[in-house]
Amino acid sequence: MQSPTVETMRWRDGRLEMIDQRILPLAFEYVSADSAASVAAAIRDMVVRGAPAIGVAAAYGVALEALRMRHMLPEVFATAMNHGFGLLAASRPTAVNLFWALDRMRRAWEACGIGASQSAIAQRLLAEAHEMLAEDIRINRAMGAHGAALLPDGARVLTHCNAGALATAGHGTALGVFRSAVEMGKKISVIADETRPFLQGARLTAWEMVQEKIPVTLIADNMSGHLMSRGEIDAVVVGTDRVAANGDVANKIGTYMVAVLAARHNIPFYVACPLSTIDLTLATGADIPIEERHPDEVKGFRDCRWAPEGVQIRNPAFDVTPAELVTGLITEKGVVDNATLVRGGLAQWLKACS
Amino acid sequence: MQSPTVETMRWRDGRLEMIDQRILPLAFEYVSADSAASVAAAIRDMVVRGAPAIGVAAAYGVALEALRMRHMLPEVFATAMNHGFGLLAASRPTAVNLFWALDRMRRAWEACGIGASQSAIAQRLLAEAHEMLAEDIRINRAMGAHGAALLPDGARVLTHCNAGALATAGHGTALGVFRSAVEMGKKISVIADETRPFLQGARLTAWEMVQEKIPVTLIADNMSGHLMSRGEIDAVVVGTDRVAANGDVANKIGTYMVAVLAARHNIPFYVACPLSTIDLTLATGADIPIEERHPDEVKGFRDCRWAPEGVQIRNPAFDVTPAELVTGLITEKGVVDNATLVRGGLAQWLKACS
Repeated sequence: MQSPTVETMRWRDGRLEMIDQRILPLAFEYVSADSAASVAAAIRDMVVRGAPAIGVAAAYGVALEALRMRHMLPEVFATAMNHGFGLLAASRPTAVNLFWALDRMRRAWEACGIGASQSAIAQRLLAEAHEMLAEDIRINRAMGAHGAALLPDGARVLTHCNAGALATAGHGTALGVFRSAVEMGKKISVIADETRPFLQGARLTAWEMVQEKIPVTLIADNMSGHLMSRGEIDAVVVGTDRVAANGDVANKIGTYMVAVLAARHNIPFYVACPLSTIDLTLATGADIPIEERHPDEVKGFRDCRWAPEGVQIRNPAFDVTPAELVTGLITEKGVVDNATLVRGGLAQWLKACS
Repeated sequence: MQSPTVETMRWRDGRLEMIDQRILPLAFEYVSADSAASVAAAIRDMVVRGAPAIGVAAAYGVALEALRMRHMLPEVFATAMNHGFGLLAASRPTAVNLFWALDRMRRAWEACGIGASQSAIAQRLLAEAHEMLAEDIRINRAMGAHGAALLPDGARVLTHCNAGALATAGHGTALGVFRSAVEMGKKISVIADETRPFLQGARLTAWEMVQEKIPVTLIADNMSGHLMSRGEIDAVVVGTDRVAANGDVANKIGTYMVAVLAARHNIPFYVACPLSTIDLTLATGADIPIEERHPDEVKGFRDCRWAPEGVQIRNPAFDVTPAELVTGLITEKGVVDNATLVRGGLAQWLKACS
């Protein structure tokens, strides 16, 4: 596989290195982690963000903890590992990939058996994390191919937040669709919502597209409706943090407004969604917990403050887009269309393709 | 009349003083102007903004020019005045009140007659500007009373941008409705969209509501849909920069998205609109020119930059909300309801109430 333009995270000298997404695009630096706690902190502080990237990073967090503690007494090792699992699970509440990744790492640990040495367990867990990283990129490339087929040549495509290489182990989900479309020879241009308050669109999506030399136009979050009304957007592709059994989609706050506007203007609204993001244990989007983040994020950005003293703040990080507004769910196994979602056929579709 | 909490502009020592709205709420300072050119610059640079405030400021700009040039030769005076009118007219393209105010000032000048001294003309124009300021506040109080009657006690009301005292000569249009509701003894709370890129909601609306001790919650522009879907918004009240003959409403970029979401959730969407903002010369909203502002506004805020090099920018300052989405147009003469707007009855309604 060709070397990716954007290497969100990488294994170097026994540590996990993650691009510090808080300071992009003004600075490009890697943050290094050597324990479950430091990976959990990186997830909580949004050094690394995006549901699939969080999942893979958490897997490395488990492997790092095993490596760090492998020479300890068995009860110390087990306690540290379980504590590490707990820290990682508590780092971000909305992304289902996080819990999926931790479950998978726990199963890998358990699969080592009673007799395995702690060093062998650590190596097994590291191999599992490496495999999850490679697998995520493979999945994104498969998703990209399915999604790219949906975009007409010349399409002007809106995306919200950053469902890019930076949100995954590489290639990206929504931005993976754009990368794959360009690889297929399609000329597309991207309109990026800036995505307040954390500005993932302005900082990360715009930066990724500039790296790839894909034409990208940045707008404020309140402008997409106007562009749609003027016929300047042909399709929407976004990522997702969790999809419920009925096809309702949790994604970055503001996605729902884009979906409602797209429906009004008959613009297809696609969600790039690896199967690991589908959570059949939740009946509907109403069951998805919505993280409320710190008020300071809305009061300004970084050191720049513009809200007056005395104002209250709401800062929900995600919203839920009902399945009826989703034209298609782009997965690595193909596209689940709106009719299938609306008639509650997602679980059956999954069963049929597995 | 009671002294207003927020004195957007005031006449002091032969000059027009305007609150510098670019630096609020971090600093509170007045900018002083003594000519048409300096008022035009203040409008262009958004020291003063909001359609009614721009209109009144422009009127003072004409009066200031007359005062400044009153001892000049008649042809020099006339040339300076006409140049001043031109500068003011070119300062912001979308606000109809600007052109309405300049027309009114020109008529006041012409009404002075051939024999009038230039000093008398200047005094007449200053009196006209004073009257326009007082009239604007009277109109806003009348509009406030009509609008306040529409809000249930306890209502949680969303507003976008700043249609406040700061956008007018005082009291405000949309925020005037809130002030009047509170004066009537209603408990209301305000949800303010931050309104990127210029952040009028975060900086100005939130600041005004804090001054008035009206509870206010600040959100990013992409959050209102989520709050609506959770039943946390009871009504929307916004201002407007221009209303076309068919009831289409031009207002700050993002208003259209809020209106579409409000309609989806059966939340009433009101537009506070002084009659001077209705432009019957425009058949529909499609005829309203939309100002595209400088790309730098979207790349960050003030000295804070977050967009990468190489990204393109769109920065439309306004959008158009079709009449069908407007539950009611709140004017100083009463409320024009949706049915009247949709059947094209706005012009007739205006005739009946004049």
